[in-house]
Amino acid sequence: MCQLLGMNCNVPTDICFSFSGFQARGGATDLHADGWGIAFFEQRGARLFLDPQPSARSPIAELVARYPIRSQNVIAHIRKATQGSVRLENTHPFMRELWGRYWIFAHNGNLLDFSPKLDGSFLPVGDTDSERAFCWLLQEFRRSFGEAPPAPAALFDRLRELTLLLAAHGECNFLLSNGDCLFAHASTRLSYIVRQAPFAEAHLKDQDLTVDFREVTTEKDRVAVIATLPLTDNEAWTEMPPGSLWRFHDGAVVGQCPTRPGPPHR
Amino acid sequence: MCQLLGMNCNVPTDICFSFSGFQARGGATDLHADGWGIAFFEQRGARLFLDPQPSARSPIAELVARYPIRSQNVIAHIRKATQGSVRLENTHPFMRELWGRYWIFAHNGNLLDFSPKLDGSFLPVGDTDSERAFCWLLQEFRRSFGEAPPAPAALFDRLRELTLLLAAHGECNFLLSNGDCLFAHASTRLSYIVRQAPFAEAHLKDQDLTVDFREVTTEKDRVAVIATLPLTDNEAWTEMPPGSLWRFHDGAVVGQCPTRPGPPHR
Repeated sequence: MCQLLGMNCNVPTDICFSFSGFQARGGATDLHADGWGIAFFEQRGARLFLDPQPSARSPIAELVARYPIRSQNVIAHIRKATQGSVRLENTHPFMRELWGRYWIFAHNGNLLDFSPKLDGSFLPVGDTDSERAFCWLLQEFRRSFGEAPPAPAALFDRLRELTLLLAAHGECNFLLSNGDCLFAHASTRLSYIVRQAPFAEAHLKDQDLTVDFREVTTEKDRVAVIATLPLTDNEAWTEMPPGSLWRFHDGAVVGQCPTRPGPPHR
Repeated sequence: MCQLLGMNCNVPTDICFSFSGFQARGGATDLHADGWGIAFFEQRGARLFLDPQPSARSPIAELVARYPIRSQNVIAHIRKATQGSVRLENTHPFMRELWGRYWIFAHNGNLLDFSPKLDGSFLPVGDTDSERAFCWLLQEFRRSFGEAPPAPAALFDRLRELTLLLAAHGECNFLLSNGDCLFAHASTRLSYIVRQAPFAEAHLKDQDLTVDFREVTTEKDRVAVIATLPLTDNEAWTEMPPGSLWRFHDGAVVGQCPTRPGPPHR
C-alpha cells in the first residue's frame, strides 16, 4: 500500500519532523520502495520534489528532511506501484494548473476499469490510474464551473459527487490541494490530527525522534496533519471513517461529508 | 539580465559541470540574485527544482550541482527580476502539460505591453510577462493543432510565427522543451556548443574547475549546451544571431530560422 502524508496550517510551517517518520516508511521501516514525492505550496507557488528512488535512500529526501521549507499546504506520497511502472512520470504527487492556481494530487489505492473520456484539457503523462483520475477531476471541475473557480462550498459538493463516481472503481484514498485548502478522501485508511495550543511533545513511531512543539510554535498556530497511518505513538489521532471526504483550511476541519450514496451533510 | 542554460543530448547526461559554473552566476560571480530553477526531463517525466533564493547560496542548488541526475533535456534559469516580484510563483522555469507531455519554459528578457487574450486553457499563476508568454504559446499550439501534436516541422513553423509576435514586444530570449527536443530563441544574446567525439578538456569561466570529457563519455555521445554567455573559456562556442530560432534534437541542431519578418529557411 502507498503512504499518504498531508499538512494544512494557518501559518507557514515546516514538515521536517513528520517527514522524517514518513520517509523511513519508504524502504526502511516499511516496503514502499517504488519512489516518492512531496509538494509544498508557498503562497500561489508550488515546489514539487520527485524521486523514483526509495525515499529511505534518496538524497533529495535527505535534503527535504533537513531543509525547513515553510508551507501552509503540503502533500507527500510514497509509492508501492500497482498500476504503471516505476518511472518518474508515474511518481506522485501530480501537478496541473487550473484557474491560475496549481493543483496537487496524490492517491493511494487502485482504480479498476477507470477509463473516463478525457477531452484533452488535462491529459496524463504517465500510465497510472491515479494521474488519470486527477486529470478527470480537473476536467470535470472546469466543465462544471467554467473559467472561474466557484465558492468553496460548491467546489466541495462537486468534489463529493465526482469522488462517489471514482470510488465506485476501487480503493481511492487521496489528497488534493490548490494551495488554499486541502481535501482528503478516506476510502479505506486515513487518519488526522490537529495540533494547537496547548502544544506538547510528540514522539515518532518510525524513528526514535521527539519534538517539543512548545518550543517551535506560537499560541495561535494550528496544524492539521493527515496520514495513511498515525505518525506518532503518544498523540490521539482521529481515524477518518472509510467513505468520508474532508476539507481542511487554516489547520482545521471545515467540511466533512460521506462519499457513499446519500445526501451530503457538513 | 537573467541567465539561461539548456542542455539537449542523445543519451541521458548529467549537467553537474555546466551547472557549477552557471550556479556561481546567481549572486557570486554575477548579480542575478532573484531566485533560480532547473528542470530535468527523464523520458516523459520531469523534475523541477525551484528556489526564490540566490543560487549561489541555495541548498537545493548545492544538491543539484552534486547529485548527477541524468537527462536528455534540461532547462535552467537564474533570475534578475524585471516584471513580477521575487516569489516562488514567479521563479522560472515554468511547467505545464499539453498533449500528454510536460512542457518547460524559461525566458530572459522583458516583454512590454504583452497582454494577449487567454481563453483559460493555460493561465499564469504568478505575474511575470514570461509565464504569460508561455501560457499564450501553449494555448496557440492547441488552437492551431487541436488535441494531438503535429509533426515536428509544423510545430517549429508555428513556433516561429508566434515568436515573431512575441518578439515584437521586446527582448525575448527563451528555452522551451517538451522532453523530446529543445527550442531556443536568441533575441539578443545566446550561445551554444555541441560536444562530441573527439572529446577534450573543458575549463569553466566562472570557477576554477576542469573536466576531461574523454573520461566521462563514449564515442557516440553528443551533447548540445546552450547558454546566455559561454560557460567555458577554452572551447569554441557559437554565438546565435539575434533574431534566430533553433531546434535541438539528440544533441544536434536540426532546425534554424530567422525570427525577423521574411520567409522561413531551415
